[in-house]
Amino acid sequence: MIIVMQSHATEADVDHVVKRIEELGLKAHLSKGVERTIIGVIGDERLVNREQLALLPHVESAIPILKPYKLASREFKPMNSVIDVAGVKFGGDKVTVIAGPCSVESEEQLLTIANAVKSAGAELLRGGAYKPRTSPYAFQGLGEDGLKLLALAKKQTGLGIVTEVMESAEVEMVAHYADLVQVGARNMHNTKLLRSLSRIKKPVLLKRNFSATLNEFLMSAEYLLSGGNDQVILCERGIRTFVEYTRNTLDLNLVPAVKLLSHLPIIVDPSHGTGRQDLIIPMSRAAIAAGADGLMIEVHPKPAEAFSDGEQSLTPDVFKQLMEEVRAVANAVRRSVA
Amino acid sequence: MIIVMQSHATEADVDHVVKRIEELGLKAHLSKGVERTIIGVIGDERLVNREQLALLPHVESAIPILKPYKLASREFKPMNSVIDVAGVKFGGDKVTVIAGPCSVESEEQLLTIANAVKSAGAELLRGGAYKPRTSPYAFQGLGEDGLKLLALAKKQTGLGIVTEVMESAEVEMVAHYADLVQVGARNMHNTKLLRSLSRIKKPVLLKRNFSATLNEFLMSAEYLLSGGNDQVILCERGIRTFVEYTRNTLDLNLVPAVKLLSHLPIIVDPSHGTGRQDLIIPMSRAAIAAGADGLMIEVHPKPAEAFSDGEQSLTPDVFKQLMEEVRAVANAVRRSVA
Amino acid sequence: MIIVMQSHATEADVDHVVKRIEELGLKAHLSKGVERTIIGVIGDERLVNREQLALLPHVESAIPILKPYKLASREFKPMNSVIDVAGVKFGGDKVTVIAGPCSVESEEQLLTIANAVKSAGAELLRGGAYKPRTSPYAFQGLGEDGLKLLALAKKQTGLGIVTEVMESAEVEMVAHYADLVQVGARNMHNTKLLRSLSRIKKPVLLKRNFSATLNEFLMSAEYLLSGGNDQVILCERGIRTFVEYTRNTLDLNLVPAVKLLSHLPIIVDPSHGTGRQDLIIPMSRAAIAAGADGLMIEVHPKPAEAFSDGEQSLTPDVFKQLMEEVRAVANAVRRSVA
Amino acid sequence: MIIVMQSHATEADVDHVVKRIEELGLKAHLSKGVERTIIGVIGDERLVNREQLALLPHVESAIPILKPYKLASREFKPMNSVIDVAGVKFGGDKVTVIAGPCSVESEEQLLTIANAVKSAGAELLRGGAYKPRTSPYAFQGLGEDGLKLLALAKKQTGLGIVTEVMESAEVEMVAHYADLVQVGARNMHNTKLLRSLSRIKKPVLLKRNFSATLNEFLMSAEYLLSGGNDQVILCERGIRTFVEYTRNTLDLNLVPAVKLLSHLPIIVDPSHGTGRQDLIIPMSRAAIAAGADGLMIEVHPKPAEAFSDGEQSLTPDVFKQLMEEVRAVANAVRRSVA
Repeated sequence: MIIVMQSHATEADVDHVVKRIEELGLKAHLSKGVERTIIGVIGDERLVNREQLALLPHVESAIPILKPYKLASREFKPMNSVIDVAGVKFGGDKVTVIAGPCSVESEEQLLTIANAVKSAGAELLRGGAYKPRTSPYAFQGLGEDGLKLLALAKKQTGLGIVTEVMESAEVEMVAHYADLVQVGARNMHNTKLLRSLSRIKKPVLLKRNFSATLNEFLMSAEYLLSGGNDQVILCERGIRTFVEYTRNTLDLNLVPAVKLLSHLPIIVDPSHGTGRQDLIIPMSRAAIAAGADGLMIEVHPKPAEAFSDGEQSLTPDVFKQLMEEVRAVANAVRRSVA
Repeated sequence: MIIVMQSHATEADVDHVVKRIEELGLKAHLSKGVERTIIGVIGDERLVNREQLALLPHVESAIPILKPYKLASREFKPMNSVIDVAGVKFGGDKVTVIAGPCSVESEEQLLTIANAVKSAGAELLRGGAYKPRTSPYAFQGLGEDGLKLLALAKKQTGLGIVTEVMESAEVEMVAHYADLVQVGARNMHNTKLLRSLSRIKKPVLLKRNFSATLNEFLMSAEYLLSGGNDQVILCERGIRTFVEYTRNTLDLNLVPAVKLLSHLPIIVDPSHGTGRQDLIIPMSRAAIAAGADGLMIEVHPKPAEAFSDGEQSLTPDVFKQLMEEVRAVANAVRRSVA
Repeated sequence: MIIVMQSHATEADVDHVVKRIEELGLKAHLSKGVERTIIGVIGDERLVNREQLALLPHVESAIPILKPYKLASREFKPMNSVIDVAGVKFGGDKVTVIAGPCSVESEEQLLTIANAVKSAGAELLRGGAYKPRTSPYAFQGLGEDGLKLLALAKKQTGLGIVTEVMESAEVEMVAHYADLVQVGARNMHNTKLLRSLSRIKKPVLLKRNFSATLNEFLMSAEYLLSGGNDQVILCERGIRTFVEYTRNTLDLNLVPAVKLLSHLPIIVDPSHGTGRQDLIIPMSRAAIAAGADGLMIEVHPKPAEAFSDGEQSLTPDVFKQLMEEVRAVANAVRRSVA
Repeated sequence: MIIVMQSHATEADVDHVVKRIEELGLKAHLSKGVERTIIGVIGDERLVNREQLALLPHVESAIPILKPYKLASREFKPMNSVIDVAGVKFGGDKVTVIAGPCSVESEEQLLTIANAVKSAGAELLRGGAYKPRTSPYAFQGLGEDGLKLLALAKKQTGLGIVTEVMESAEVEMVAHYADLVQVGARNMHNTKLLRSLSRIKKPVLLKRNFSATLNEFLMSAEYLLSGGNDQVILCERGIRTFVEYTRNTLDLNLVPAVKLLSHLPIIVDPSHGTGRQDLIIPMSRAAIAAGADGLMIEVHPKPAEAFSDGEQSLTPDVFKQLMEEVRAVANAVRRSVA
């Protein structure tokens, strides 16, 4: 950390800050400039509350130098983490596609979709049993019945299951059915849920909150890692901006930025990221070209009859086309798709 | 709802949409323009999934006409709701101030602050026992021990208690200690928590998520109201924007907008809203001038030693000055402060 | 400036940076930490291109310590600047209100409004003769004929004139008619226009661009000040965010922030800032409570027939009410309105 | 346009609106719902000021149905426009790359870069002679001397020239040297400049303002088209959001959205869009995968010594690698690069 003193700070003010730094078990190093004095703090600043120094008298600002996350950083672990989900790898040479309906609606709906996405090349099946909805009057998911239908689909198709858990009390149950437990964007900051998930032996798919900075996103991953679960896959799904022509603004810049800063795999969800059927194929191609390790795509045989998210669901035919186009781009960046 | 057909839609396309509208139990009303046909949907559109019409062939867009919330709207209840919290009213003629530390740290800290804010005119005591923190390495609150200290402070000062609950499993315990149960900004979309809180007999303070639209904010209130709890107080606490000189962007425009659209009281939290000690007094004055029903302010005797949020905490002396300035502005808008 | 070296930087890397700092006429001061070396740059960093140090080999980041503006800063000039516009002061004890139509439409329209706003207490008349419009098909202003009508209104009412200039070629003409020359939000970054305006002897009203940070806003003021024109009044008029219920998000937090960082007066335009008639009075009250030095308000006798911005224009009657409410709030913050 | 009446509007209120619609030369079509009456406006709503209807008594809202732009829309011109710049095509089968320094600094600098980018496959040379800078103390460009150096580079390499014009008074001079005249992001809303450029016979590269919506972007194009210049190329270069790890947020979603709504070509500038050398290659690949018609890339032999934008400039070697990677992705989406 760097402490910048105000221009009118006296030597006594500086001494006071230095003393406080030493009380916290760190060392101080002075640098007297023309306009102001700067104090370098030597030691692991992650263990200190920055504000406790920033608020000392005549301190102008306290600037962190280290990144706030440690276990999630590439400095801590230089090689890519490769996460295994029911035999399917994330973070290696291959690009992996997860597909399925927004909500599990019925056995027929789910099995139709599961078979269709499998034959097109998807390697995992997504489907929501617990749905966080903006409106209390909207469909909220089938609950455990939905999880049982997912188990049935897994049995019939062999596809591993990706599904969302919404609170810590349900972690055990959802993890029983899921191969990859999803933390939705609305729960990225839910520290109780993250703590619970840090203690299970299943991989976690952590979606970025729609207003999360990169630091905050990796700090949520740090909750999982520091609690003992190192099977974490990140997912970009769009941020909230002033833009009006997409439901969210899919922020593909995050993908190469995460690759520089972290060892964790990252996939992209262009269905939520754009909210529009007609943008999903080009943005899927772009995600893979940007370096994403996989995709998560919503598929529904009759989008106009879907219980939720119809506007961003592809029909099985269009999904098949998506897989072909994504395959070509993956090859162009020296990766492959199943 | 208004259905706008594409310019090349045929009569058969229009007939297909009309038929679907009628299947959903609504009526359709055609309006043929020069460039395209428009279909008015007659009936309660809140009961229909908009996407199921928007996705029909050759529909260009489906535009909702009604607001998505009902019980929270001023059309439903024209008069202001006045909510009673331990004998203190929100939403009437008076302006009410909640104050206290970000985190409950110790008996001494809490009682010192409680006595100070009471003597300055605060009517309720805030204090966090469960803290949602960005970093897993930061202080996460004293838990139930913190709640017990709040109960002690209430006994000694008579101030009612405002404190946060973080998940549905803890609603019962927190509601046992709290007079006003707070839903933090990170949990505004936590539908499980909202459902649990809709069943208790205590008032709820619902903070706006930092990326919530006004519709989404009122829809979270609608979860509480539709589940049976009509004691809801809203709280603006800053949104996330590109702006860099405040931690968040306190959006005071929301205050008069809520007053137009809803009957619920709304207060403002300039501590989180700005994140800066030196902006809290002017923005508190502005909040009351904009029509807010109250304020929530963080106070700490030694901000530089606070376990959390020191940078946005006022000392008791500065808080006393705030109360005086707020009182003058409240009088100027024909309201009063205790 | 602080140079943070990468954790694997060698002594030779550090020496290379130090040498470059010295070549630029500055001094370097080393601070060797546990994880990395930090170099303090001593001297006026505003004269150095930050990137030229940030891009040296094995530099992790180069962090500016000084603010990028100098003449606009309160450190440079601790006392408030008070700007005189046709005998009306901005930045002193009084709160000044500018009012008038969005566009000058006709002699009758302008004189009606000018007389009405004067009798309600406005001290300057605004009116657009050159209008930057989003649509090429919309009314673009009366041009110099509009300026002549403003001159006529000044003659009849004695109110000084505030009007916008859109490019440097028109500065001389507009400054001939205007007492306060306005730079619109779309032109805040127009450095050619700012350079031209820095050479005239008239005060300038600089509106914040809807995506400008505080630093960028003050840097545009710095263009005017460094070019020789120290008669600058700032104006907050709303920023672009995800929020949907206001046309822009009026950012009142800027007002006290500017007061801390700069000596320049700042006024608020709640008409553009909210874009809604029904929010203008409460947000005007809030602006004054936050510490603004004045307001700029759009008034039109028949908003439904205005050539532009009708939705955010007040009728003269409502404007009169605004003045009364603002007067009460100004008194509460120990200021006065004419 | 659709006029939604308030729920308590009377028949007389509705009649008043209908009469006003007819006075404006349009037809009205009523649709009486359960909760409110809706009026369809029949005729070309682009010719009417929406606010003049929205502000009539007891109107709740006036919702436009048609898009505000016409000449820029794909409905108006279904086939892609292909724009020829000095023999190089934009909008056809090929992907075109523009490259060069941020600022023209010297003959040696420019010729070195021009030769390097040409040999790597760039087809046009960019270089700024007039630079809009945030700081008045920063390098503002060589002016016409810079244009002359660009002419020299064109003569030596055969590469057509892309350079920015900053105000209408300089259009003629800049257009004399440029093959493609650039409107910078800060000037996208400069209607005076757009009007001047609509009258020249040179193609225009229109960059998106960092807070422009898609509608506003296409409306700026409409200024050019409606004034008589149909040689318009769009450029996405990043928007302003809360995100902190990129200088701007490159919004690739715009690319397929423009392709759906407009016939104009669109290219991407990942240098400004990300502001970071290390993200430019992956985001260039992604841009082409998303469907962009070209790229604009900043190249400098010694980024650490560049007069401007060094942090986002590639060395010639890295640019060569970019071209190879982009070529592979272009082929994967069935396009080619020179």
